[in-house]
Amino acid sequence: MMNIKNFSISIVGSGNVATHLAQAFAENGITIDYILSRNISHAKKLAEKIYNSQSTSNFQDLSVSDMILLCVTDSAIEKVAKSFAYKPKLLAHTSGTTPIDILDNYAEETAVFYPLQTFSKDKSLNYNEIPICVEAKNKNIEQMLLELGHVFSQNVRYMSSSDRETVHLAAVFVANFTNYLHIEATEILEKQNIDRNILFPLMKEVLHKILKNHPKKVQTGPAYRNDEPTMERHLTLLKDNKTATEIYQLLSKCIKEMKH
Amino acid sequence: MMNIKNFSISIVGSGNVATHLAQAFAENGITIDYILSRNISHAKKLAEKIYNSQSTSNFQDLSVSDMILLCVTDSAIEKVAKSFAYKPKLLAHTSGTTPIDILDNYAEETAVFYPLQTFSKDKSLNYNEIPICVEAKNKNIEQMLLELGHVFSQNVRYMSSSDRETVHLAAVFVANFTNYLHIEATEILEKQNIDRNILFPLMKEVLHKILKNHPKKVQTGPAYRNDEPTMERHLTLLKDNKTATEIYQLLSKCIKEMKH
Repeated sequence: MMNIKNFSISIVGSGNVATHLAQAFAENGITIDYILSRNISHAKKLAEKIYNSQSTSNFQDLSVSDMILLCVTDSAIEKVAKSFAYKPKLLAHTSGTTPIDILDNYAEETAVFYPLQTFSKDKSLNYNEIPICVEAKNKNIEQMLLELGHVFSQNVRYMSSSDRETVHLAAVFVANFTNYLHIEATEILEKQNIDRNILFPLMKEVLHKILKNHPKKVQTGPAYRNDEPTMERHLTLLKDNKTATEIYQLLSKCIKEMKH
Repeated sequence: MMNIKNFSISIVGSGNVATHLAQAFAENGITIDYILSRNISHAKKLAEKIYNSQSTSNFQDLSVSDMILLCVTDSAIEKVAKSFAYKPKLLAHTSGTTPIDILDNYAEETAVFYPLQTFSKDKSLNYNEIPICVEAKNKNIEQMLLELGHVFSQNVRYMSSSDRETVHLAAVFVANFTNYLHIEATEILEKQNIDRNILFPLMKEVLHKILKNHPKKVQTGPAYRNDEPTMERHLTLLKDNKTATEIYQLLSKCIKEMKH
């Protein structure tokens, strides 16, 4: 079996996922041969940050690597896979919602290497904690990708395309939708010139509670205790805010119904 | 002016708010004379935990204290205020949504001492960080309540009944509604036997991002990038889950609309 530290990767993409995975691998001794991106200046900028890596716009260059990792938006995966004039030895994508099968026919071996995290370019992360979900058609490749994930994360597992899609859906609820609730809350406060930082201790405690308890056990609030007068006052406060009213009504309804 | 450390409080209620406020005050040298509660055994249990405090079922006993603090549910505030056969010197409630005026006529001086936090009985808290919103009709009382809050918190301010109601409404979005989204996410995972802890690193990072950035600047996800194929797949996955479908559709719609 090959020594995983001799493994080399080329990356297609130069966005948040490309940036963080390139850094996580390179910081842990994995060679990043090439960064290829539609936007050549972005690819160049990223390659300059990564030890021994270079940018290219030539798909042929990537053939030197043991694996080509597609860090592109879901809708671009197949288009990029089609751009190779040859069959890569091992082609992997990094998408939560895209089945592994989308890469069929475009490479000798195909795989998925999905990091379940929200990435921002300029924000450093504890790579050690990022859940990595790997999938491959070939058991040896799967084993190798598990090892590759362990190079920087303690939280690596095999996951089928179907389970990965479920996890991604749940992530939309706790990440994207939660963030949107904070947008609404912030706007409610800003309208009255109240600084949103008054909510910070509460937000931290809410997370602590959910990390330690099943969220069903720690649900509280006016809807949960069927406190109609409070809910009515809240809806009066929201009367000029149609979006927030719809959200308030739907989520209160859901919370009331969960008790029965 | 009186030395705030000579101040004494009696508390009506023995729930989460009563427990934590009694502890926060007592640990910082404020005398808690009496705990009175509908449930006498709860009052007794709480008084036993608090230095030099005793339980009672006699409203008359509370008249020895400089302030009587109502830590009861919103709907019980007025009922309890009516239970005094005398006019307390200073009567305060601890509710986010209830105006100070509800206490009019029931005491010589009235006030609000609202701690903006989610309390669980058995969970210790950093009292130092809890935002305390105080309000009083009398400026001297207000000043004294600000001092009283500073006994355990660094985060004490005057807030009007109207602003306090707005803050409480925003808190419902970031606490109760966020918790409910986590219930939905957890159920989506449990249906496929996936442990919810796979989401923990993401949940922590989402909070970090929101603490450091206005949530509008860090919104992401399929709805935000108008990724219709992913949203359609998600709705297919949710087809047997009416509640989650409604939430997914409404929040996705809101997120899509916010861009324009």
